Amino acid sequence: MTSFRVGLLGATGAVGQKFIKILENHPWFQITALGASKRSAGKPYAEAANWIESTPMPESVKQLKVLECKSELFKDVDFVFSGLDSSVATDIEGDFAKAGIPVISNAKNYRTDPTVPLLIPEVNPDHIDLIHEQRFTKDGSGWIVTNPNCVAVPLTTSLKPLHDAFGISSLVVTSMQAISGAGYPGVPSLDIMGNVIPYIGGEESKIRQEPLKLLGTLSKGAVKYADFPIEATATRVPVINGHLLSITVGLKMKADLDEIRDAMNNWKSPIHELDLPSAPEFPLKVHTDPRYPQPRLHADSEGGMQTAVGRIRQAHVMDVSYIAMAHNTVRGAAGGAILNAELLVRKGFLK
Amino acid sequence: MTSFRVGLLGATGAVGQKFIKILENHPWFQITALGASKRSAGKPYAEAANWIESTPMPESVKQLKVLECKSELFKDVDFVFSGLDSSVATDIEGDFAKAGIPVISNAKNYRTDPTVPLLIPEVNPDHIDLIHEQRFTKDGSGWIVTNPNCVAVPLTTSLKPLHDAFGISSLVVTSMQAISGAGYPGVPSLDIMGNVIPYIGGEESKIRQEPLKLLGTLSKGAVKYADFPIEATATRVPVINGHLLSITVGLKMKADLDEIRDAMNNWKSPIHELDLPSAPEFPLKVHTDPRYPQPRLHADSEGGMQTAVGRIRQAHVMDVSYIAMAHNTVRGAAGGAILNAELLVRKGFLK
Amino acid sequence: MTSFRVGLLGATGAVGQKFIKILENHPWFQITALGASKRSAGKPYAEAANWIESTPMPESVKQLKVLECKSELFKDVDFVFSGLDSSVATDIEGDFAKAGIPVISNAKNYRTDPTVPLLIPEVNPDHIDLIHEQRFTKDGSGWIVTNPNCVAVPLTTSLKPLHDAFGISSLVVTSMQAISGAGYPGVPSLDIMGNVIPYIGGEESKIRQEPLKLLGTLSKGAVKYADFPIEATATRVPVINGHLLSITVGLKMKADLDEIRDAMNNWKSPIHELDLPSAPEFPLKVHTDPRYPQPRLHADSEGGMQTAVGRIRQAHVMDVSYIAMAHNTVRGAAGGAILNAELLVRKGFLK
Amino acid sequence: MTSFRVGLLGATGAVGQKFIKILENHPWFQITALGASKRSAGKPYAEAANWIESTPMPESVKQLKVLECKSELFKDVDFVFSGLDSSVATDIEGDFAKAGIPVISNAKNYRTDPTVPLLIPEVNPDHIDLIHEQRFTKDGSGWIVTNPNCVAVPLTTSLKPLHDAFGISSLVVTSMQAISGAGYPGVPSLDIMGNVIPYIGGEESKIRQEPLKLLGTLSKGAVKYADFPIEATATRVPVINGHLLSITVGLKMKADLDEIRDAMNNWKSPIHELDLPSAPEFPLKVHTDPRYPQPRLHADSEGGMQTAVGRIRQAHVMDVSYIAMAHNTVRGAAGGAILNAELLVRKGFLK
Repeated sequence: MTSFRVGLLGATGAVGQKFIKILENHPWFQITALGASKRSAGKPYAEAANWIESTPMPESVKQLKVLECKSELFKDVDFVFSGLDSSVATDIEGDFAKAGIPVISNAKNYRTDPTVPLLIPEVNPDHIDLIHEQRFTKDGSGWIVTNPNCVAVPLTTSLKPLHDAFGISSLVVTSMQAISGAGYPGVPSLDIMGNVIPYIGGEESKIRQEPLKLLGTLSKGAVKYADFPIEATATRVPVINGHLLSITVGLKMKADLDEIRDAMNNWKSPIHELDLPSAPEFPLKVHTDPRYPQPRLHADSEGGMQTAVGRIRQAHVMDVSYIAMAHNTVRGAAGGAILNAELLVRKGFLK
Repeated sequence: MTSFRVGLLGATGAVGQKFIKILENHPWFQITALGASKRSAGKPYAEAANWIESTPMPESVKQLKVLECKSELFKDVDFVFSGLDSSVATDIEGDFAKAGIPVISNAKNYRTDPTVPLLIPEVNPDHIDLIHEQRFTKDGSGWIVTNPNCVAVPLTTSLKPLHDAFGISSLVVTSMQAISGAGYPGVPSLDIMGNVIPYIGGEESKIRQEPLKLLGTLSKGAVKYADFPIEATATRVPVINGHLLSITVGLKMKADLDEIRDAMNNWKSPIHELDLPSAPEFPLKVHTDPRYPQPRLHADSEGGMQTAVGRIRQAHVMDVSYIAMAHNTVRGAAGGAILNAELLVRKGFLK
Repeated sequence: MTSFRVGLLGATGAVGQKFIKILENHPWFQITALGASKRSAGKPYAEAANWIESTPMPESVKQLKVLECKSELFKDVDFVFSGLDSSVATDIEGDFAKAGIPVISNAKNYRTDPTVPLLIPEVNPDHIDLIHEQRFTKDGSGWIVTNPNCVAVPLTTSLKPLHDAFGISSLVVTSMQAISGAGYPGVPSLDIMGNVIPYIGGEESKIRQEPLKLLGTLSKGAVKYADFPIEATATRVPVINGHLLSITVGLKMKADLDEIRDAMNNWKSPIHELDLPSAPEFPLKVHTDPRYPQPRLHADSEGGMQTAVGRIRQAHVMDVSYIAMAHNTVRGAAGGAILNAELLVRKGFLK
Repeated sequence: MTSFRVGLLGATGAVGQKFIKILENHPWFQITALGASKRSAGKPYAEAANWIESTPMPESVKQLKVLECKSELFKDVDFVFSGLDSSVATDIEGDFAKAGIPVISNAKNYRTDPTVPLLIPEVNPDHIDLIHEQRFTKDGSGWIVTNPNCVAVPLTTSLKPLHDAFGISSLVVTSMQAISGAGYPGVPSLDIMGNVIPYIGGEESKIRQEPLKLLGTLSKGAVKYADFPIEATATRVPVINGHLLSITVGLKMKADLDEIRDAMNNWKSPIHELDLPSAPEFPLKVHTDPRYPQPRLHADSEGGMQTAVGRIRQAHVMDVSYIAMAHNTVRGAAGGAILNAELLVRKGFLK
């Protein structure tokens, strides 16, 4: 495996820092260019960034001079990760793609674009072929791939076995989301300490929509969305990392509890054989202790890349209820994007 | 109004202490006898109790000698409040009722007894007449009234206007419950700090069942339960006071959002005219700020006796979603029992 | 007592909101004018302020139109409270004083001015006469009085009995300060949840200096500062309200533990007889339970106006160690300023 | 290096679990016997222990049958670690030592025994020779070595360079201690959430005394204690791991700030060359960012074995103030004991 030279857009933000932390010792990807806002441009990264990760800033980035997020300044990279804010991602990511630089993005802007894969490697790896429909460049050298919202990841990953086995007819989910999901400075401590905030602006529509694309089927260059209603309530809780979901699901085919558990337990990740460096051995862990999963105990499992479920039980309304949880800034953001890039390497889109 | 001499069973526990705190300046009720376990009996209360309330222990109870919970030691009281643990409440409360001492209980043990009112004064005050069906004593002098589980209170209070206006067909609820609900010492800090525990043993069955009795109709000396399925997920969050509920409801008659809001906003408490000392002026507060209600901001509203709702919206599954919240140890425990007693006074059951 | 018409500068900030909350039912003072930044000016207060108090915004201020902080717009008030940010307080407060409007300020800017009283009514009420030295106006109608930093208040209040009885020779203090001290949005939750931040910029110099002015003696129109060194370490802890201090003191006259306790217990506030509305009955509470005082249990004692001490003991280095604690935004900010105003009324400076 | 068979006393408690977690992949030590109370004896460990670590219970211990803590049941081990509660450690540890089984203990019971080394390898490795003074067995095969209290570790490690360079004359320290220091279930969440408890029973006397033995000099088979007074205030804060200390020190030789910083920065651990598996590369990290160290960010540095200091500055009382912090259950408990054992291997006491 040759090594890839990687650019990072939005390098000084919370998501950008998480990319840098996770990539510190990555076997394939090396960060060689950092992009941020005009205000940071020209400064060494160590000076431009207010580092908030608990591990020290990697030496390899400290002296990198921060660039403006313009494609002509990133000529030497093989592709870029984007942790850009949605207020600027549309233009910048489009600019890079048009310049022939692949963009692996965590931003929401292109997730709903019909030619852009919204990708969880374990859920819909075949959607990667949507890339061929993109027209950013004539030669296909520039394109965009996105990863989903941080709630959509554990939600969809846990739904996948049920959807495959029984079909899903409806879904009610309440999320209890960690403060790290709001970035930095993010949630004021006076708002969240000893409290729950029962509202996160803009979040519920993503939770309602993204699983339907992720669980959709690719056919003739387009994704046919899955078709079931989702009712979502997104709340913020005083947890540092790990979004926990209380989920109740209606199934198209009736199933008893054993069949449901079997579907979850026996589910095999379609990328298991690809041996991707960031892929968890068990992307979906089924806990049997009713107290589990818990964010503080399990968000970091398998490097933060595992989705955990628990309390699988028959529901008194609809069919089955369970808890799901995953690390929101790793599995649900930077780590997810990195796994997407690894899949793109294995599939020959990045080389 | 004459003053009542009141006994308190389970006086040293967390619920017992809350009774003492709330009753400190009560216009009608004066605590004159305290009951606790054998271990505490004989000691002055100041010595027997590990006081955990933030306001000082009232002077009036400090020197009261703690008694064993035996009815013959409580001859001088007009009635007792019970904050007893469920492991002992069946026998002790039954003993008191048989001895002709009315029991206003927060314990769960008699809530499902067909002759025992499970009472929220604003929801089902007429159920009080079930007392006449009780046979603890020949002359009817001894009886038991109970208040519901701390989640069932805001759940049922907020459902009541919808149930009356449209009928309820199904319900999915996820609770985020405060640590004070587990008593003292209760939840270890190592378990809950920066965490969510997605399971509270024994809680979900109460949430599924109690609203159906509360919303039932009294006819010919029996409660006909309401008939709709409830799916409940009970979680513990790092909040001190205030259980917050994420609720999605199916209605029997379709209603648009305005009709739903009107039903909530225009609902009138049936006890409003009774002018009970502990009754909140607005037992059901409808917030319009989407960030509200929040436990830390609103649990203490109207002395902790108000149920707050917010985020009323049409749901994509079933019909309507909203947030409800109430103070779990006041409205959902001691304060609720005290309001029950006040209603029993006004209705002539206590005199 | 006639009623005073009161202006409030910095009305939309966290301290300003606390003023409004505390003054809601004040027997003497009625807020009639609200000042804030240009950005807020012209809007009704309900629209200009992001209300963060847990009790609802008082009706009396909701429709008040916010003014710019210019003295000519405040002609109708008897005096103003200032919760201004220090970045603007020097000019604005000076402008008001020169315009003949007394300023009772919580800002730090004039605290070190030799003609401005830095005042804790229970500690140095006589310093009020410094007002006569001020030259903002020829007729003495405009002047400024300040209250101390939120750590200096419990520190100095608890030192006062010791200073009077034995003299203080040196002092080491570590503060554990609540997040509300940083205003709103203030401390990011990602910084402080489950954490301690061992640094608060600019705080330690105030802790070192203000107690010396407060414990100083007024003579010939000037304060002679107390003369002992203070070593301070200011930290931030995940507490909502209440700064707790770990204090070790050296005394000029040696004293045994009984004498020290007696000095604390027997200390009489010099303003006790004045019967000021906001004055706590016991401005200095000595706890004997070694676990007390605690911010969550005791910050609200006596309306947040009490300084609590505990764990008084002989020290192995210097002479005596103890814990002190007070509510930082009430006693240490808005409430302290209001008590200053009450003293100024009683002493005839406001009329 | 041959492998050691290791017993663990107090295996089911919080400290015992930390031993198991840290030793999971230890290159030298393999746990082969687990001791706990009579109540647990006979059960497989997976059943006897309520596992509270966030990483899963190691497979290697799950099926080990728990033994009573009697030396005759531990014949096959080379030595034991003890995480025993102090209420039983005196007898059990003595029993093991007399039976010829070396005991590396985290319990406090033998720390003050004049023949028992109280050991921080980086501070006083030479004290190890005290072992020769022990008389548990005639042939010297059984002996006890202890590690210090969890506050004493970062305190003494950070003092060591100052003590060597300038001599210490006095010390005032306030600790802010994590909840994990109280074991499990330990501190009730209702006591500590959003709060500070300014008292930890029995803690301050250990903080006052243990550094003096650790900084003492070994001569003629006895430790001559260092001789300076320590004033300590121990508080509990809502932090999960990491005790943070605010320290003010008097020096015997006056030193300016540069000299003090140089002493800290240039200090060399005496065991650096020994290459012990658990020894941190930098046992004493000096932070220059004034906001650091922080428990949540830095407690896990170098596997939780590093002591971090920061905010070194000249003090206005005595001479120098700084912050110190270390992981209380790793560096301050199980990890410290394991490092002691590694030193004992290298020095030939274990073989």
